[in-house]
Amino acid sequence: MEKKELLYEGKAKRVYLTDDENTVWIEYKDSATAYNGEKKAEIVGKGRLNNEITSLLFSKLAEKGILSHFIKKVSETEQLVKRVNIIPLEVIVRNYTAGSFSKRLGVEEGQKLKYPLVEFCLKNDDLGDPLVTDDQIDVLDIAAPDEVLLLKENAREINTVLTDFFKEIDVRLIDFKLEFGKDADGQILLADEVSPDTCRLWDIHTNEKLDKDVFRRDLGNLTNAYETILGRLGGPTHV
Amino acid sequence: MEKKELLYEGKAKRVYLTDDENTVWIEYKDSATAYNGEKKAEIVGKGRLNNEITSLLFSKLAEKGILSHFIKKVSETEQLVKRVNIIPLEVIVRNYTAGSFSKRLGVEEGQKLKYPLVEFCLKNDDLGDPLVTDDQIDVLDIAAPDEVLLLKENAREINTVLTDFFKEIDVRLIDFKLEFGKDADGQILLADEVSPDTCRLWDIHTNEKLDKDVFRRDLGNLTNAYETILGRLGGPTHV
Repeated sequence: MEKKELLYEGKAKRVYLTDDENTVWIEYKDSATAYNGEKKAEIVGKGRLNNEITSLLFSKLAEKGILSHFIKKVSETEQLVKRVNIIPLEVIVRNYTAGSFSKRLGVEEGQKLKYPLVEFCLKNDDLGDPLVTDDQIDVLDIAAPDEVLLLKENAREINTVLTDFFKEIDVRLIDFKLEFGKDADGQILLADEVSPDTCRLWDIHTNEKLDKDVFRRDLGNLTNAYETILGRLGGPTHV
Repeated sequence: MEKKELLYEGKAKRVYLTDDENTVWIEYKDSATAYNGEKKAEIVGKGRLNNEITSLLFSKLAEKGILSHFIKKVSETEQLVKRVNIIPLEVIVRNYTAGSFSKRLGVEEGQKLKYPLVEFCLKNDDLGDPLVTDDQIDVLDIAAPDEVLLLKENAREINTVLTDFFKEIDVRLIDFKLEFGKDADGQILLADEVSPDTCRLWDIHTNEKLDKDVFRRDLGNLTNAYETILGRLGGPTHV
């Protein structure tokens, strides 16, 4: 597989074409951003950590029968994935109150919800990724109602599997954001990444934050937190 | 029926107790507010216009079998209504794109939606009345899922009736906000008001705005716009 020209550069990743039209080459960058890009930093090692963690989690999800775009890791900071058209929705799953849920709705963080919530936000930086209802998604022709149902089902299933994984390593999965895409055959696959950039992960005993909130809220050293997650997942840590 | 002490003063109305514990006395004020109270003005005659229009519309809705808190108009600016506990949700119905829908989602105003949308916002000025999903309403114990379904059904039915009323007077019902309450028997009733303060009303031929957007966006004289609506509804205008 050969890495070809840059297709797209996002806040945390570069996407390159390859000699296979259905495969793209992802390079994880050492950039951290928060608050819709308002807060930024270069953090050496972050690209490696997210690439390693995402690769591990996608592999674990695949063992449980959950389809994703992930093909294989090709270096510490790079992976090959199936080329998909991203559905422009952030699919958010919440097990505990935190983040925008707490802020928007005036609810204290860290309270267990009576069941996991699935929410959708429109993926649009200019609009600040606004929350959208199922009917809004339909009338705006962002996704069809049966696709929205499928995304919800997938998100709930992924939540069940991820919650168990993290529990095994003494981590509480508070909430997370998923993105899905459609491959060349129109099949909906989990895409983007599953990492401490996209999940809130709290130590199950101490509630220590082991995710991007360390950066967002200036709580300490991001790479230490991410190394903790990678280490507990049995990955190749540099510590 | 005797007017007793002030129970509550809102942005646009005062609510008084009466000698009947299940009845309250509403006085419509001459205050206009917008953008969560950021923009304010005293507009002589506005209280009368909203009281007259709301009284007319509640009566017309009652003729179509739609239950509301409205009992009767007692003066130009006052009405008697059943005392209810307001469910803290703004129930928004949209037939055309406009207002916060257009702004939040980056969509041009005035486009017909493929079906009427019902949305819920949490009634909370401090939080800026945030949009909430059905599941958020449930997990926050704001209303039970069967109540949310009932509110949606009622809102759609009210929309059908109001759309027809307004069409008869050459007015397009773009969108509107409803509030519901529970009476002493636990019955859910339409409450608050239905007026140009809570509906977007555009002239069907010219698209002239005949609602609070005239005030919000400094488009001209609010009382002229409201008098137009009251006059077309066959009410007692002062013009």
